[in-house]
Amino acid sequence: MYDVIIIGAGPAGFCASIYTIRKKLSTLILSNNIGGQATEAFKVENYLGFVSISGVKLIQKFQEHTDHFNVPVKQENVEKIKKISKGFEIKTSNNKFQCKAIIITSGKIPRTLQIPGEKKFIGKGISFCSTCDAPFFKNKNVAIIGGGNSALDSALQLSKIAKKIYLINCNPEFVGDTTTEDKIKKSNKVKIFANTETLKIKGNKIVEKIKIREKKEKPKEIKIDGIFIEIGSIPASYFVKNIIKLNKKGEIEINSENQTNITGVFAAGDVTNISGKQIIIAAGEGAKAALSAYEYLKKHK
Amino acid sequence: MYDVIIIGAGPAGFCASIYTIRKKLSTLILSNNIGGQATEAFKVENYLGFVSISGVKLIQKFQEHTDHFNVPVKQENVEKIKKISKGFEIKTSNNKFQCKAIIITSGKIPRTLQIPGEKKFIGKGISFCSTCDAPFFKNKNVAIIGGGNSALDSALQLSKIAKKIYLINCNPEFVGDTTTEDKIKKSNKVKIFANTETLKIKGNKIVEKIKIREKKEKPKEIKIDGIFIEIGSIPASYFVKNIIKLNKKGEIEINSENQTNITGVFAAGDVTNISGKQIIIAAGEGAKAALSAYEYLKKHK
Repeated sequence: MYDVIIIGAGPAGFCASIYTIRKKLSTLILSNNIGGQATEAFKVENYLGFVSISGVKLIQKFQEHTDHFNVPVKQENVEKIKKISKGFEIKTSNNKFQCKAIIITSGKIPRTLQIPGEKKFIGKGISFCSTCDAPFFKNKNVAIIGGGNSALDSALQLSKIAKKIYLINCNPEFVGDTTTEDKIKKSNKVKIFANTETLKIKGNKIVEKIKIREKKEKPKEIKIDGIFIEIGSIPASYFVKNIIKLNKKGEIEINSENQTNITGVFAAGDVTNISGKQIIIAAGEGAKAALSAYEYLKKHK
Repeated sequence: MYDVIIIGAGPAGFCASIYTIRKKLSTLILSNNIGGQATEAFKVENYLGFVSISGVKLIQKFQEHTDHFNVPVKQENVEKIKKISKGFEIKTSNNKFQCKAIIITSGKIPRTLQIPGEKKFIGKGISFCSTCDAPFFKNKNVAIIGGGNSALDSALQLSKIAKKIYLINCNPEFVGDTTTEDKIKKSNKVKIFANTETLKIKGNKIVEKIKIREKKEKPKEIKIDGIFIEIGSIPASYFVKNIIKLNKKGEIEINSENQTNITGVFAAGDVTNISGKQIIIAAGEGAKAALSAYEYLKKHK
């Protein structure tokens, strides 16, 4: 029986494991998605200590760190968590594991458009995070797809950086902060397409064009250098939805000590209801969750 | 008038500045203690991405990062914060600065023993953080000074790592978690000195001996490889004590969005009431505070 099993191998999970291992807790990481969303970032310039690094390379640095402490990682798909007398049993597609405490750091998956070209250009002009990637599009032309607050925020941020912004909303109206919408409408850099479908993303090695269709009109193509897909995301909390309290978005609700509603189960990073889905924030939260798990085990071991 | 002034230049402040600058907010850092407590760490092995690095070098990495984004830093001693019509005025020993939002990241200062040898050996065998530094004392002899929970926790952690632990308490009894105390008393590695004064720390280049005096006995010297001073710390919140809500420890109380009780004033890191005073946690909290300040300025600018 492990002291702690960490579900998820992104920044939160990696950082949590360094803290639990250094506290001499027997630790195992379970994940079928090493690195998580961070690996999709073309460039990361906001992880303190690394001026500019690709998402893939940053995750490699994290793995070198956990390898240094011999943190075991098993590539397993977690299906279910069950309370047992002395702790928890985690069922994966092929195995069962037991532990005294769990830290869930399974992250989130961005919603995708499911259109031709999208998969090919992720990290090659397509981004799911304007806070992360907007500064790379200085004086460039970009499209933003979405109709909610994250699309509007993205447009506002890019209006200070990019040359021209095409904001493409498949609905007739925006559902978001009116103040932000007003600011965007005043900007002569932003062209809004309402009632507009995004059909295809085209390019050679990187994104070059986007094909859209306004209601009742013929499809047309726009030249752009980048696309921000801002249509929300899905927390990877499906395997605990019956036993752990989630908010309306499906995020795991935690308190300021990273505890969930189930004693002995902690959570950290993008899968939780914290504000700011960022690599450095997830890493810090992972450390916090690990220290809380340590405190818990000190009393219950 | 700046959009944001960050008070403090440790991990939280540096990370906050990267986020505000990338959001195109005009930013200034004020601090008379660049790097803060992190610079005192002999080795840091729990900042995700760096396997092993000295505190000083890690802070240099952080500064390279903020220099890359041209974050201005002024070495000023902040004395007071005042609300003015369009934001805030910050009074330092020599100047006045105005801004629309403030992020306080002024950290904390560990309490010191104020005995001969202490100042000389900080980072050379003397540590103020067992979570950070305990793993460096594998099979070594260490002294822990203190009589509260942090001293007890430190002893428990070191009992799994070090060879021999001398736990030195100037009071007759411990004031802390009884479960932890019981576990320590059972460990044959830990020798407790109650009613014992710590008189002097001796060594050549690094710590070698500690001189103590048990009540009514003659002073004696013990050979040790390291000393953990665990007698608490003082949050650097003195300059806001009259306008911002602090907890009993003097820490700034923040909500989950890093807001203080004063609208427009945010705080992050060791100066706040968050759990886990760690570099990676402070960095993540700095990012969160910056994103909250950005949201605030979006509405109030």
